Amino acid sequence: MGKMEDDRFLLLNAIKIAKKGIKKGRGPFSALVVKDGKIIAKANNKVVVSHDPTAHAEVLAIRKASSLLKTHDLSDCVLYTSCEPCPMCLGAIYWSGIRKVIYASDRNDAERSGFSDKLIYDEIGLEPANRKIKFIRITDAGGEKVFEKWDNFENKIPY
Amino acid sequence: MGKMEDDRFLLLNAIKIAKKGIKKGRGPFSALVVKDGKIIAKANNKVVVSHDPTAHAEVLAIRKASSLLKTHDLSDCVLYTSCEPCPMCLGAIYWSGIRKVIYASDRNDAERSGFSDKLIYDEIGLEPANRKIKFIRITDAGGEKVFEKWDNFENKIPY
Repeated sequence: MGKMEDDRFLLLNAIKIAKKGIKKGRGPFSALVVKDGKIIAKANNKVVVSHDPTAHAEVLAIRKASSLLKTHDLSDCVLYTSCEPCPMCLGAIYWSGIRKVIYASDRNDAERSGFSDKLIYDEIGLEPANRKIKFIRITDAGGEKVFEKWDNFENKIPY
Repeated sequence: MGKMEDDRFLLLNAIKIAKKGIKKGRGPFSALVVKDGKIIAKANNKVVVSHDPTAHAEVLAIRKASSLLKTHDLSDCVLYTSCEPCPMCLGAIYWSGIRKVIYASDRNDAERSGFSDKLIYDEIGLEPANRKIKFIRITDAGGEKVFEKWDNFENKIPY
């Protein structure tokens, strides 16, 4: 199979898993992490069933893959996801080093089914003071001392 | 204590925990989830030690609090964090329903110590095609069928 057909095949697989998960109480999203053409992790959204607001399909698949490979660095992996990653999952993708994401639906499709992805994308660009959630900075609490300590710590492993 | 002193006291607590974590191999970040004035969850950043790129302090504290309260809904909680949440953690905060976040350092401080928070904030506002990570949408893979199934599923629990 050529690369484009591989991508389509794996994305169809993610979509199939997402559809199957719904009747088990899972959210309508699924993601796969693929390394060297092989699926090494797959996940449905489990926010409600596992009482965990961070249990999006992409986050769970990334956590599984990292645990399996024993590293937080997934820079040789590709993510396939039934829907455009929300800002939380996009952040997780950047932190994992994944270089390519293939997806089907987008934030507007998710919004029509009642999910806040687009709202959060809109909020993230606002100044902290203008957001729906109050973000209050206390500048004189000594937060900079944490980074000073980190900068001077000889045994640190940067990530 | 008045509310402002409470906020400062709890933030200082988070900063103290962040400093203590560094010599244990943890990242220079810490977060607390507080409900009714009581700390119900605290966490350091454990990305490297737990092989998990999503193991930021805020994500871990939110996961602990949700697990404890047996719900993904933390709308009656406040988050205290030693540094401005990155986009992943900001997303986690929105999905959890937390309404108030108190923080000390910001994305620029984090950048000076080698962390990509600001880069990810910058990337998130770009069109998917212009980002450092390739985001490729396949529009005709049937992604919309997942949401159709969800919309028509009578026993769903919206979140």
